[in-house]
Amino acid sequence: MRRQRETGGLAEMMDGSVFELKDEGQLREREAVLRERLLDAQFDLAESRKESILVLLNGPDGAGKGQVLNRLHGWLDPRAIKTMAYDIETKEEYRGPGGWRYWRDLPAYGHVGIVLGSWYHYLLHRRATKLINKSEFQERLDIVNRIETMLAAERVRIVKIWLTLSAGQAEKRVKKNHGGPGTLKNPLLREWRSIDTKGERKRLVEAAQEIVASTGPEAPQWHQVPAEWPMARDLAVGEIVLDAMQQALAAKPPRKAPKPSARPRRVSKGPSALKALDLGLSLEKSDYRKRLAEAQKELYALTRSKKFSKRALVCVFEGNDAAGKGGAIKRMRAALDPVHSEVYPIAAPSEEDLAHPYLWRFWKRIPHRGDVAIFDRSWYGRVLVERVEGFAAPADWRRAYEEINDFEALLSGGGYIVHKFWLSIDQDEQLRRFEERKEVPHKRFKITDEDWRNREKWPAYEVAIDDMVALTSTPSAPWTLVEANDKRYARVKVIETLVDRLKSEL
Amino acid sequence: MRRQRETGGLAEMMDGSVFELKDEGQLREREAVLRERLLDAQFDLAESRKESILVLLNGPDGAGKGQVLNRLHGWLDPRAIKTMAYDIETKEEYRGPGGWRYWRDLPAYGHVGIVLGSWYHYLLHRRATKLINKSEFQERLDIVNRIETMLAAERVRIVKIWLTLSAGQAEKRVKKNHGGPGTLKNPLLREWRSIDTKGERKRLVEAAQEIVASTGPEAPQWHQVPAEWPMARDLAVGEIVLDAMQQALAAKPPRKAPKPSARPRRVSKGPSALKALDLGLSLEKSDYRKRLAEAQKELYALTRSKKFSKRALVCVFEGNDAAGKGGAIKRMRAALDPVHSEVYPIAAPSEEDLAHPYLWRFWKRIPHRGDVAIFDRSWYGRVLVERVEGFAAPADWRRAYEEINDFEALLSGGGYIVHKFWLSIDQDEQLRRFEERKEVPHKRFKITDEDWRNREKWPAYEVAIDDMVALTSTPSAPWTLVEANDKRYARVKVIETLVDRLKSEL
Repeated sequence: MRRQRETGGLAEMMDGSVFELKDEGQLREREAVLRERLLDAQFDLAESRKESILVLLNGPDGAGKGQVLNRLHGWLDPRAIKTMAYDIETKEEYRGPGGWRYWRDLPAYGHVGIVLGSWYHYLLHRRATKLINKSEFQERLDIVNRIETMLAAERVRIVKIWLTLSAGQAEKRVKKNHGGPGTLKNPLLREWRSIDTKGERKRLVEAAQEIVASTGPEAPQWHQVPAEWPMARDLAVGEIVLDAMQQALAAKPPRKAPKPSARPRRVSKGPSALKALDLGLSLEKSDYRKRLAEAQKELYALTRSKKFSKRALVCVFEGNDAAGKGGAIKRMRAALDPVHSEVYPIAAPSEEDLAHPYLWRFWKRIPHRGDVAIFDRSWYGRVLVERVEGFAAPADWRRAYEEINDFEALLSGGGYIVHKFWLSIDQDEQLRRFEERKEVPHKRFKITDEDWRNREKWPAYEVAIDDMVALTSTPSAPWTLVEANDKRYARVKVIETLVDRLKSEL
Repeated sequence: MRRQRETGGLAEMMDGSVFELKDEGQLREREAVLRERLLDAQFDLAESRKESILVLLNGPDGAGKGQVLNRLHGWLDPRAIKTMAYDIETKEEYRGPGGWRYWRDLPAYGHVGIVLGSWYHYLLHRRATKLINKSEFQERLDIVNRIETMLAAERVRIVKIWLTLSAGQAEKRVKKNHGGPGTLKNPLLREWRSIDTKGERKRLVEAAQEIVASTGPEAPQWHQVPAEWPMARDLAVGEIVLDAMQQALAAKPPRKAPKPSARPRRVSKGPSALKALDLGLSLEKSDYRKRLAEAQKELYALTRSKKFSKRALVCVFEGNDAAGKGGAIKRMRAALDPVHSEVYPIAAPSEEDLAHPYLWRFWKRIPHRGDVAIFDRSWYGRVLVERVEGFAAPADWRRAYEEINDFEALLSGGGYIVHKFWLSIDQDEQLRRFEERKEVPHKRFKITDEDWRNREKWPAYEVAIDDMVALTSTPSAPWTLVEANDKRYARVKVIETLVDRLKSEL
């Protein structure tokens, strides 16, 4: 008896009016099979943690995105599914760069996220309302394609769904949902309410066509799902999601890295940036004090200026062990308002970090506008320690250069000022500092066996550093190589460089 | 040689001008000893994860809060210390209820947080500027005392520091820091810049005295640190922090719970709320459809109203296993804008959750203003499953009733609407539903061995539920007991109750 009541609920859950009863039996059967398979696949996926799945639900108002969302929530186990729903314009969005909110909410491996108001929705909206022109639109699509390719490589499976409905039907549905009492049966999603004029609608259609046409070969393809019949629509979406979960389960396990070569070769061309450094550069104490104080004062003023409040500074510190990153960061921090700045020491990733693409933990720490984030080590670990130690497979660290450039381009594109410092010392100076650290009680914690082991890989690190600088120094996110044998010189160079950069940006 | 340069850096790091050289040798020695002990204690604490430490740095502008902060960062291992710095008024603050931002940023056990702009700063500011009157101020201090007592019981050690400086000195320092070029050596913290008039200053001093006088006996006491001599000041603060870390290390391990009594007794008085329920209540299908649709429509309108955009709804669903929480939540979700609502299924706490006080993982999920959060199970696990299964010691779940009331009072005080539902079925109905779940393929995931085991503890749960309702139902955060043997009746009651509540609140 129960069983019957349950399937009776099926018609009840639906929009009802447009449902043709003659198909009910068949659809009901499809639904029963689908629900069971979905739950099985979802359970296996959550266990395996192989991939995460992002279902992008797109379509015109009235196509029933809210209904599909609710149906998927009814079918799937709520513990491993989350809604990621975004308005076109929110305060948060303004607080972070493009993509920030999607990244921050990425589900962990094994979980499913359903996205309403995806990046496509955002782009289409901007194009339809002429906030961006055709070529800007194309540029951004290009970035989106690259990021989706990266996400796929990072085990995030994107399922792109476009619900299709004729314009007349859509309008009818929207009106009905806004009609008299008792008509609200499902959440209302009126994503396109601000698209009014004929011109806007025309641009919207053109832009949508362009999106489908320009989807890269390695980026996930679009699924078009007719939205006339609610139950048929939901079953079609459910089957696409099931298919994605089964593909995720069948995916090969992540590449394992072979033992790294003892004699690594550079992957970039051009001269060594490290070899060009003059590590003899130094500063007298009185000079140091004067220039440091002056630069700190300017840095403070610049980062508290009105212009800066609409920008943000993301600062990366990398360097040889014992190169003096901590000391330089300390001097920089002293010139910043503690309320609007944060230093992030980056150690080995946590369990939660490992359940997401490698850039996720950095996206989480991207500052709000008006703020400063200092990364003491960073995403460059991917092409430094992970490359040299063999924690990442060659194919993985090789693709990281482009991925990091794309990541930083998103920051720059959002008005963020990105600057990266490599603090460079030579082997003799490092040895001196290691010995010193052994002696001074309060510095002992700074020296571990690992530091000594890293020292032996000096040549491999040199190759990795030269590649990194050659492949990821861009006009909007440059590397500054800092001669750091003399700590005073290094500290002043860092802060003066930042002052110059900020002056030219603001 | 190096060693000397390092200690030479000591004078350089300080404000300089007010330092008397005759003490330098002595202070230098104290600093060397302190740094080593701090690092040792910090390392042990991070290993043990016994407690977390919150250092509240308070004091007048010019006393050098920013300098102390920087010094502590210089002394301690940056990997287990974080700055928690807050402005008096930020956008975030507006987005959440009182205490939200502090809770969200709580360091994990084993870590140290240094708080600039603590809750005391916030309260003093509001009192000085007459945003609250004396009795409101006293009320809030009372809440603060209770929360600090709770945090202490939850292994968060609060270290309250007030830097003292005569008014004349403070003014001089502030001016100096704003003087000509080259004077900025440390971050500027001008927390009190908006306190201008004589009246404001008088109220500030009075309120500060009241804070010290009214600190509860179990709440942590204040340390007053003279701020005239920067190095002496920093050493005094460092030694207080060291002392706190050593006390944390010496603290007894958390209580272990004994095996729970098979025949639990109620801790509250009064009749059983559960026994008073008429589980025979039901609704006809046609009635159900009509009333549900009507209530959903109202709920949608209310949660999208302008008035609601300055409020928020926090909704808790608890109930017997198989009582139909999921179905009720689904009908509720269908009436909400997905962009502004979220359902949180609460399962066993994660590693990260366990590294924080038990309420932390719920604070993290408190919605922004204008939004709705639905908790599918909640913080009440503390006084339900944790009590019944003996996961929490009696002393711990007993104190939880008051703690939860305080937590919900903070939400209500911040304009949040809190409503809690207990969905109640009887044992026969539960058995029927369990059997059904075994049969229907897509419901199988909903039934586990644990559900059968829980069933055997039915009487113990009844006692716990009656206590919970009796001790935590407050006018601003009431429990609604829902007769749920009939699913239709339950769903309609939930949504109609919410509609009534929202109408009376908005």
